[in-house]
Amino acid sequence: MRTYNFSAGPAMLPLPVLEQAQAELLTWQDGMSVMEVTHRSAAFKALAEQTETLLRELLNIPLQYKIFLLPGGATSQFSMVPLNLLPVGKTADYVITGFWSEQAMLEAKRYGMINIATSNQNEIPFDIPAVSSWQLTKDAEYVHYTDNETIDGIEFRATPVISNAPLVSDMSSNLLTKPIDVSQYGIIYACAQKNLGPAGLTIVIIRKDLIGHARADTPGMFNYANHLNAAPPCLNTAPTFIWYMIGLVLAWVKNEGGVTVMAERNQQKADLLYNAIDQSNGFYHSKVCANVRSRVNVPFFLLKPDLEDIFLEEAARVGLMNLAGHRQRGGVRASIYNAMPLAGVKALVAFMQEFERVKG
Amino acid sequence: MRTYNFSAGPAMLPLPVLEQAQAELLTWQDGMSVMEVTHRSAAFKALAEQTETLLRELLNIPLQYKIFLLPGGATSQFSMVPLNLLPVGKTADYVITGFWSEQAMLEAKRYGMINIATSNQNEIPFDIPAVSSWQLTKDAEYVHYTDNETIDGIEFRATPVISNAPLVSDMSSNLLTKPIDVSQYGIIYACAQKNLGPAGLTIVIIRKDLIGHARADTPGMFNYANHLNAAPPCLNTAPTFIWYMIGLVLAWVKNEGGVTVMAERNQQKADLLYNAIDQSNGFYHSKVCANVRSRVNVPFFLLKPDLEDIFLEEAARVGLMNLAGHRQRGGVRASIYNAMPLAGVKALVAFMQEFERVKG
Repeated sequence: MRTYNFSAGPAMLPLPVLEQAQAELLTWQDGMSVMEVTHRSAAFKALAEQTETLLRELLNIPLQYKIFLLPGGATSQFSMVPLNLLPVGKTADYVITGFWSEQAMLEAKRYGMINIATSNQNEIPFDIPAVSSWQLTKDAEYVHYTDNETIDGIEFRATPVISNAPLVSDMSSNLLTKPIDVSQYGIIYACAQKNLGPAGLTIVIIRKDLIGHARADTPGMFNYANHLNAAPPCLNTAPTFIWYMIGLVLAWVKNEGGVTVMAERNQQKADLLYNAIDQSNGFYHSKVCANVRSRVNVPFFLLKPDLEDIFLEEAARVGLMNLAGHRQRGGVRASIYNAMPLAGVKALVAFMQEFERVKG
Repeated sequence: MRTYNFSAGPAMLPLPVLEQAQAELLTWQDGMSVMEVTHRSAAFKALAEQTETLLRELLNIPLQYKIFLLPGGATSQFSMVPLNLLPVGKTADYVITGFWSEQAMLEAKRYGMINIATSNQNEIPFDIPAVSSWQLTKDAEYVHYTDNETIDGIEFRATPVISNAPLVSDMSSNLLTKPIDVSQYGIIYACAQKNLGPAGLTIVIIRKDLIGHARADTPGMFNYANHLNAAPPCLNTAPTFIWYMIGLVLAWVKNEGGVTVMAERNQQKADLLYNAIDQSNGFYHSKVCANVRSRVNVPFFLLKPDLEDIFLEEAARVGLMNLAGHRQRGGVRASIYNAMPLAGVKALVAFMQEFERVKG
């Protein structure tokens, strides 16, 4: 029996997607599994083109943006962004709103001068400082921020409007969960394992004029220009199965009504959960200000921390899995990405209320 | 219906492996697909440990070697090897026996001084110059060679015995196809998509004393030390499904009798095919000397090149797929890795003989 999986990633996938993958696993096309097709075959090229078309359509991606599906996770983008966009001796601005934006900044610091435009790390409940208060560098090469911080559950409500430099956004945990205006960005990147598919590929949406300026010491695989200039669909052997799964997930999102519908559902799920937390008279509590609470990662804590292990154990017993907070933070965290059905969140809320009734 | 897939990679997988993956696709453990489990879960840690244990057992890997499963393909290792082993101003030796060893050399050249110890590229039929003739550097940091050249089908019959430096080997296309003595190597790397599983991970077997000397400009993901020091099983989110598939393939190899049995079968398949080529009175011909012919990639050419397209079309029509040579070389190429059954090679040989009878 399938459980509700609240993991932050790899995360739950839509059941119809898994069922289709299962049905086609032995003979996808040409009498072979999609795991067995060469990335240079006509069948895989068609798959890659369909995937790109779907992504362009769902996110309304303008033609002056190139889309890459790259290996190595968002962590690799932490290096690729400065290696490609930050010439020696130049400055980039980083906005710190949690663990992942800090990791991105620390990696970039190894390559050039980094200005921390703002940080929200000194105050709880967590907020995001107003863009007007950010200390931006006049001639920064780019401004990097993390649209959703998975660990603490902090999400930007709107694209920060800046004018000094191209905006680079890590949208690993919320790409495809809401409409976005891609034209406001220089680069958007997102690893697959939250809303896009299984782990193994990272989507990079990059304005073409930002490609071609990599530093001389950039490894071949980390140079966006090498991927741009490669024979389609990819520079080196692609994980064909992961690519295929992303295609199935995109088709599912389209079939469900697109990112606007995803946004509505995610808001509904998040509201349910935050209301349950806020109405618990402090038995559960959030450490994030209401206006920046993530719609996709909902961390919360119990008034009595010694009850947290019991909460997690009993939840798992009724099929509510992977609710432990990040190992650096403890507490509880419910990740409720696109593939988490409303029924899963309702089951969690019912469990929380019953747990509070018994232990409160 | 399943076909025989002679692709050089991604390549055929063992049918029992695909069947098990299909059966478990929706509910592997904890009521979820292995694509949905977090890489930090107990279930996945156990899977990763089993995978390592199997690999150590099958290849008899000594304890002073660390095993990594890394993203980015063998192409990423082309950069990682010099970034981690070649200090600025030092020299590495490269042995050129074909396209891939040349690619590895060209990438390394960007980071330091490269000495081409030998090259076989000027003479056809291709041979491998005797190790005694190699121009090795006295104090080279390492010697890199490619154990099997996938495109031209050139394979070392034995590990080259050198004494000047650690031996680094790209075994992307023949790891797990034969017994090897790991203790003769500094690093062995192999992408998964030939004999180990679907595309998406590269196995790196590295002597521990070679870790920890990366250059300052090495991206975090490309520094072996960061992977060594990461909390097990991995530094950042792993493609859990690919890892799982590799585990299934390793279990299949063990169940079939291990790498000695694989070597016997591969030799038998290769002999069948090369005999068919050699006994065709020149209708088919190989461009590789008999003593270095690859047991896993068998490229051959037709006396009348205008028959090659017809050969490929008619072969595909009877379920013998992906027999086209590499786009840089043309001709025919049959890749017959571990998962290609003897029956597949017999079917190809029968087709070749019938084609020759009709068109010869």
